[in-house]
Amino acid sequence: MIGIAVVGYGYWGPNLVRNFSEAPDSRVVAVADLSPARLEQASRRFPGITVTRDYRDVLRDASVDAVVIATPVSSHFELSMAALAHGKHVLVEKPIASSTSEATRLIDEAAWRRLVLMVDHTFVFNPAVRKIRELVTSGEIGDLYYYDSVRINLGLFQHDVNVLWDLAVHDLSIMDYVLDDKPVAVSASGLAHVRGGPENIAYLTMFFEPSKSLIGHVHVNWLAPVKVRRTLLGGSRRMIVYDDLEASEKVKVYDRGISLNPKPENVYEMLVGYRAGDMWAPNLPVTEALQTEARHFLSCIESGGTPVTDGAAGLRVVQLLEAASTSMQHRGDVVEIGVEISGERHL
Amino acid sequence: MIGIAVVGYGYWGPNLVRNFSEAPDSRVVAVADLSPARLEQASRRFPGITVTRDYRDVLRDASVDAVVIATPVSSHFELSMAALAHGKHVLVEKPIASSTSEATRLIDEAAWRRLVLMVDHTFVFNPAVRKIRELVTSGEIGDLYYYDSVRINLGLFQHDVNVLWDLAVHDLSIMDYVLDDKPVAVSASGLAHVRGGPENIAYLTMFFEPSKSLIGHVHVNWLAPVKVRRTLLGGSRRMIVYDDLEASEKVKVYDRGISLNPKPENVYEMLVGYRAGDMWAPNLPVTEALQTEARHFLSCIESGGTPVTDGAAGLRVVQLLEAASTSMQHRGDVVEIGVEISGERHL
Amino acid sequence: MIGIAVVGYGYWGPNLVRNFSEAPDSRVVAVADLSPARLEQASRRFPGITVTRDYRDVLRDASVDAVVIATPVSSHFELSMAALAHGKHVLVEKPIASSTSEATRLIDEAAWRRLVLMVDHTFVFNPAVRKIRELVTSGEIGDLYYYDSVRINLGLFQHDVNVLWDLAVHDLSIMDYVLDDKPVAVSASGLAHVRGGPENIAYLTMFFEPSKSLIGHVHVNWLAPVKVRRTLLGGSRRMIVYDDLEASEKVKVYDRGISLNPKPENVYEMLVGYRAGDMWAPNLPVTEALQTEARHFLSCIESGGTPVTDGAAGLRVVQLLEAASTSMQHRGDVVEIGVEISGERHL
Amino acid sequence: MIGIAVVGYGYWGPNLVRNFSEAPDSRVVAVADLSPARLEQASRRFPGITVTRDYRDVLRDASVDAVVIATPVSSHFELSMAALAHGKHVLVEKPIASSTSEATRLIDEAAWRRLVLMVDHTFVFNPAVRKIRELVTSGEIGDLYYYDSVRINLGLFQHDVNVLWDLAVHDLSIMDYVLDDKPVAVSASGLAHVRGGPENIAYLTMFFEPSKSLIGHVHVNWLAPVKVRRTLLGGSRRMIVYDDLEASEKVKVYDRGISLNPKPENVYEMLVGYRAGDMWAPNLPVTEALQTEARHFLSCIESGGTPVTDGAAGLRVVQLLEAASTSMQHRGDVVEIGVEISGERHL
Repeated sequence: MIGIAVVGYGYWGPNLVRNFSEAPDSRVVAVADLSPARLEQASRRFPGITVTRDYRDVLRDASVDAVVIATPVSSHFELSMAALAHGKHVLVEKPIASSTSEATRLIDEAAWRRLVLMVDHTFVFNPAVRKIRELVTSGEIGDLYYYDSVRINLGLFQHDVNVLWDLAVHDLSIMDYVLDDKPVAVSASGLAHVRGGPENIAYLTMFFEPSKSLIGHVHVNWLAPVKVRRTLLGGSRRMIVYDDLEASEKVKVYDRGISLNPKPENVYEMLVGYRAGDMWAPNLPVTEALQTEARHFLSCIESGGTPVTDGAAGLRVVQLLEAASTSMQHRGDVVEIGVEISGERHL
Repeated sequence: MIGIAVVGYGYWGPNLVRNFSEAPDSRVVAVADLSPARLEQASRRFPGITVTRDYRDVLRDASVDAVVIATPVSSHFELSMAALAHGKHVLVEKPIASSTSEATRLIDEAAWRRLVLMVDHTFVFNPAVRKIRELVTSGEIGDLYYYDSVRINLGLFQHDVNVLWDLAVHDLSIMDYVLDDKPVAVSASGLAHVRGGPENIAYLTMFFEPSKSLIGHVHVNWLAPVKVRRTLLGGSRRMIVYDDLEASEKVKVYDRGISLNPKPENVYEMLVGYRAGDMWAPNLPVTEALQTEARHFLSCIESGGTPVTDGAAGLRVVQLLEAASTSMQHRGDVVEIGVEISGERHL
Repeated sequence: MIGIAVVGYGYWGPNLVRNFSEAPDSRVVAVADLSPARLEQASRRFPGITVTRDYRDVLRDASVDAVVIATPVSSHFELSMAALAHGKHVLVEKPIASSTSEATRLIDEAAWRRLVLMVDHTFVFNPAVRKIRELVTSGEIGDLYYYDSVRINLGLFQHDVNVLWDLAVHDLSIMDYVLDDKPVAVSASGLAHVRGGPENIAYLTMFFEPSKSLIGHVHVNWLAPVKVRRTLLGGSRRMIVYDDLEASEKVKVYDRGISLNPKPENVYEMLVGYRAGDMWAPNLPVTEALQTEARHFLSCIESGGTPVTDGAAGLRVVQLLEAASTSMQHRGDVVEIGVEISGERHL
Repeated sequence: MIGIAVVGYGYWGPNLVRNFSEAPDSRVVAVADLSPARLEQASRRFPGITVTRDYRDVLRDASVDAVVIATPVSSHFELSMAALAHGKHVLVEKPIASSTSEATRLIDEAAWRRLVLMVDHTFVFNPAVRKIRELVTSGEIGDLYYYDSVRINLGLFQHDVNVLWDLAVHDLSIMDYVLDDKPVAVSASGLAHVRGGPENIAYLTMFFEPSKSLIGHVHVNWLAPVKVRRTLLGGSRRMIVYDDLEASEKVKVYDRGISLNPKPENVYEMLVGYRAGDMWAPNLPVTEALQTEARHFLSCIESGGTPVTDGAAGLRVVQLLEAASTSMQHRGDVVEIGVEISGERHL
């Protein structure tokens, strides 16, 4: 039985407590949060759990084997580092840290101490995303042409990060998991509509090796009247529409594409024609992503294995976020993803 | 009764013939097209109309007062110029020409000859777009925050222009009509998935004066598995969703936005909160945009008036397309919209 | 070249004229309508066609081989009978006539004169409906459990028939084509919300032989705020959703159903469990139903063949409409479909 | 602090425990269920609660003031009666009992003992339904024309009741709350597709006083490939579409209807014309219906008030379900809602 402490009982914390409570190999022994009101809620809903305003209490608690951190991004590094220093395994909310240098130091610390460091890239454990990866890696989709995602809603403004770090992080983690190729450069544009606040709308373009005819794009927005969670993946053989808000048929695979007309006879004739076939929506398991993820974390602790969403995955995502934020401050100037930094991928 | 000749009887030509046939003040006297098969179709559907493979026949025809040009973009300039030179009024398919210099020469020629030169920016005559302009100019929406449009489908590949010139042109013409402010710079990225072909996917960002907190973005794609025509306009007071594929309720106005929390007490409290009110879908007239447009063209000929979508509007759109194509060839480098060229707006 | 006259140039007439104009083996020689304004429209759109206010002109016209009747239901019998009497083949708008006795007389007259009598059950020529029939007859769906259809909108009130005769007729014609089994009894309920007008909302239940576990139901409504055209077909192996308003994926096939739990251990356990598999949307040809139908009519005239939607099909549908109207006047009392009348099916 | 015991910890039980745990004036002291596995789940999620396989334990427990019953329908009467007999207030899952006679006895028992008897007609506490009632009672909708509901999905087959008692009960409870008029007769048709099982598809028509031009209809189905929860309310002034599966805009109000043409000139002209205005989606509070309901139950206990969904409301719904089941066994024969029984409404 692995003892879990959850630090941060805001929006996501209750889900973490519930899932680690229900996982067969763990029990939640403590919850830490700065807000007495939130701790009161936690006590009411989960009567058996110790609560505290001081996260150091959980670090000192010998019954805590692992710490799950669900606090604002700016505190991820400090809290994770402290937990690792106390010999606790760490599952930290996405993004793993506020900078590549912080992420690198966490990776090193965990490696040195032989502790599990995992980042909560939840979508990697989502049945729809897993099906998409299966379709892509099996060759079903053919050569990849584009990854296009719209992730917008009337959302909470984060106080410490811009909308890329809050929402685009999901797409970057999905792309990191689904695509073999990694972006070599990014360009981003955005605006802050609250004076002095972080950017609340952003467009991020990702460039790949020119030999790959692949482009990535993400639109994120905290100030949209409607909620949209829609991703298109175009391939040479098939195309995918992944709509996370669909109750069923979240993933649709279209047997559509283009065919070449080798000898057009005149200017009206097209070089390229349509190809339209059936559409197919694979049945997806109804497992909760967070439950799968919790069990994966517990299993890595028990077996000493490396999580799918390890520190290196967290770092790759932070690299892109960092580069995108830099680009956004320069009205979309292209920022290359540095070779030496991208070498970190192989940590 | 104004005599009309339609040059080009491809996808759009039959709609033009039908609408000018049904308009009360005009009759279609001739159709020109290079393809005998298309002319055969025109004759079958509209038995009373003269057809010809040589467009010069219609220029020489004294019963033709105005020429409507619906041919590939590369021929717009030459055909429009020839028609003006023969004293014919011109309504030309969007975009008005292949370059700003061509567009400028057409404007000059029409001005000098006192002929009507109009560009077929059809959406400007669409009831939904007219309602949106009304909402924006009345102040109902407040300060504009963003114009975001997705215009994608499994579309015909054009042989002479990239996807921006084929699809983004619609959004640029809508923005030109709806927004008071004009973009001062653009950045575009895209890819061609057919070797040697034009770009079939593109992302276009438009920057405005920094004093305006406004950003524009368009995603166009000929290689998407689903058809999407959705535009979001965010404002400080209200937000609009315009979905052109909705059978009814094409325009939805959301009384949603953000409210500022002046004194957050701690790091968990947000500076910015939601504001969610009713949604409202104004009833729209069911008039066909092309019929409104045809009548506007005829009325300008009769009264000597200036069309809403005159040569200057056509030029402004071509300027942006030209700049965007340049940017796209340089992986998104920002291209400023030159002052002297933008001076053309006031022609 | 078969000469066609269209009688009635209201809502549907222009589509009929256009389709017979474009069909390779026919030409439209005349249009008759009582309204001068409509005839003016016909002349304007189809300049080569003779128009007349007196339908007897077309009966006398030797160049007319077949008459296509698109007038209010109350005139179907008289006009069809007159056309047959003048030796013209007849394609008549649905429903074929106002009563079973009228329908029977038309069938007899056409048989005796060896003329083609066809009823315009358009949906029978719709690619989606043809695909559904293919799925049903191939056994793909298994035993049929239900046919459920909702066909509602804010519609034109017909002055001579109730909403069943206007809208449910479509479903009855689809069922007649798709299902091997025919209803043995019906029950219908409805209301008229305009004093003295026909029923504008109706619910129709169709009963089949008890040995078949099949039930049919149709909801039709002229006074609905939204347009719905959705049909569900449930089967023991698969289920179909047919949404005629979907731009693509009109037909979706769900690999869903129930599985039996032979030995439930306690009252909480269910006898019956879910079975949820993939969903599949077959690609459908984009042919226009009315073009397919026009060609089928012409081909029957040329070959002397029997149309798929012959007089007997028209009669079977009218029988059900008649029975349903009777039931509706008696607050849903079940009306059996008489044996001797249903013998007409084999005419 | 009111002590609550929840009897039955199946699908709905956990929601009841959570809501009464979170309500300010109550605490959940015990959970009873026949299944040890379910009790184990309850203990794991709510560590402080006593669990038992014998519901009589909770009846004997003096700290239990009220019993919340969420068991199969067949046990509602016995369990509720026992709880009342032990002086406990009762909130029982819908439908209140298996028959009108059972319901009447519960009402009498609660009245005699001056205990609160409430039935869990959850939708009555749903913000969307409350808004609809507001629109109807304020006259905004005008005279009511129809209530039409589709409530279908691939659902769990209940072992002790047919699909009317499981799903139509929701609509009957909504109608009971929203409409002033009550049905005077019903007709229902349905089928069982599992041999020996209850009907899994049913159509229910409700008739009202003929002076009211009102009709009600409900389609319920456990064997549908898609989930639908859509209710239409037509009125003389406006129409409502209530789609419970919409994430936002659950209630849409359409300013649509018909206008009379007093003097049609000829047979082509309609007596009745369209009227199409704006659509409006009121903003709805995001409160959870069950939380509102739990607080209402607690408040009735404290104040001695009568619940909105009291025993009489429960009885009226059971009356209709009983009549509908009778009708369904006779292929839709109309069953009048008896006067003497409907007198029970005024209990």
